[in-house]
Amino acid sequence: MTTEDDGTPVDADLMAATTELAAALRELIETSVVTTAGAAEARAAADLVREATARLAASRRPKSQLPELDDPMSGRRVFSPVSGIGNALAPPLLIRRQDAGVVAEATLGIAFEGPPSYLHGGMSALFMDQLLGSAAGAAGLWGMTVHLETDYRAPVPLETPLVFRAAVAESSGRKSVITGSIALRDAPDQVLVEARGIFVMPRPEVVEAYFGSITDAAGTHTPPRRPSDAGALDQG
Amino acid sequence: MTTEDDGTPVDADLMAATTELAAALRELIETSVVTTAGAAEARAAADLVREATARLAASRRPKSQLPELDDPMSGRRVFSPVSGIGNALAPPLLIRRQDAGVVAEATLGIAFEGPPSYLHGGMSALFMDQLLGSAAGAAGLWGMTVHLETDYRAPVPLETPLVFRAAVAESSGRKSVITGSIALRDAPDQVLVEARGIFVMPRPEVVEAYFGSITDAAGTHTPPRRPSDAGALDQG
Repeated sequence: MTTEDDGTPVDADLMAATTELAAALRELIETSVVTTAGAAEARAAADLVREATARLAASRRPKSQLPELDDPMSGRRVFSPVSGIGNALAPPLLIRRQDAGVVAEATLGIAFEGPPSYLHGGMSALFMDQLLGSAAGAAGLWGMTVHLETDYRAPVPLETPLVFRAAVAESSGRKSVITGSIALRDAPDQVLVEARGIFVMPRPEVVEAYFGSITDAAGTHTPPRRPSDAGALDQG
Repeated sequence: MTTEDDGTPVDADLMAATTELAAALRELIETSVVTTAGAAEARAAADLVREATARLAASRRPKSQLPELDDPMSGRRVFSPVSGIGNALAPPLLIRRQDAGVVAEATLGIAFEGPPSYLHGGMSALFMDQLLGSAAGAAGLWGMTVHLETDYRAPVPLETPLVFRAAVAESSGRKSVITGSIALRDAPDQVLVEARGIFVMPRPEVVEAYFGSITDAAGTHTPPRRPSDAGALDQG
């Protein structure tokens, strides 16, 4: 779960710089989609972007190694494409616990457009999957999505404050059913999009097959697991 | 539908520059997620990114105005967050007609990660929604998603060539049912993710309520509609 920063200490300077870069990138992505500045300016911007990439490209972690800023035990995922403050693909949705579930607020730009002036329908599904998964994690029920359903009651406007919510509906053994919704922040009880997901904690041998090669930044073997229950892997 | 470039002529120089900028941005986003370069380099990159934004920020289109590069009649959407070659949020999925449906291929980077080393489950739903909608559009059945279901058979690996497919399963009046899948390019018959969506062409008064203010870049009123059937709005 990527929620409040409640995990182990991190390199605060690296976190701040990573956050700054992603914020700058989000603004550039949005600007690149709405600009009417023309071809010469776009090429000049592309030159600057390639220069920025060159500054960062000298060394990279492999796919099997979690980033230094992540904390697998608390579920802090700095580069999540939905909730990651360090990933420019993410709005980001800063998900926090509220009542029995989780909530996030965001205002989305034109870069997220599907039908003209509205959020892409698939983006609603993407955000709901993350909220549902975060609600599972907040309840100590880490699992992988096996089924996701999204119902669209009305289009979701862009450039308008939104509220995203999710909570565990039922849970039994390794399986959880989570529900969630999207609404306008100013009309939170009028649901625009509803979602329902089934999450399953994989059996230990499946976790090992999927994540056997994953390590943290220090090289320690770090498969995903239920954060609040270190014995969960033995209950398969 | 965003497929091959089969619409009206565009400003080829602007299209090339827009494509170049988005490609450079995609590389920077991915690099920013995997780099181990450190805080000073991230701040230097952020400075360059803000400089790029400043080059583009002088003038922008409003939310109600489609971009100059789009062609509403052919369905060309250059800034789609899934298939738009001009939007850095998009991988992009370059969707083309094949047999009775549509297909796209892509290899996704770590910026799209959910569980360690695998595609975010919500990203699968996002991409499927776009493929399903494109399959509807390719069949002349433009509509808005009212229901989307995604089933996850196995995790989708990152940095691995993938194939996305969709086709119309049934269609009646304003409603279409579309199905789709994600598989490895090298094992196209072993489905990793399956999707099913219900798309509905809104009634004319709903189209007007949702899209009444939308214009093309020249200021002409341009609500979405079924591209192959100009009379479809009268069949509500």
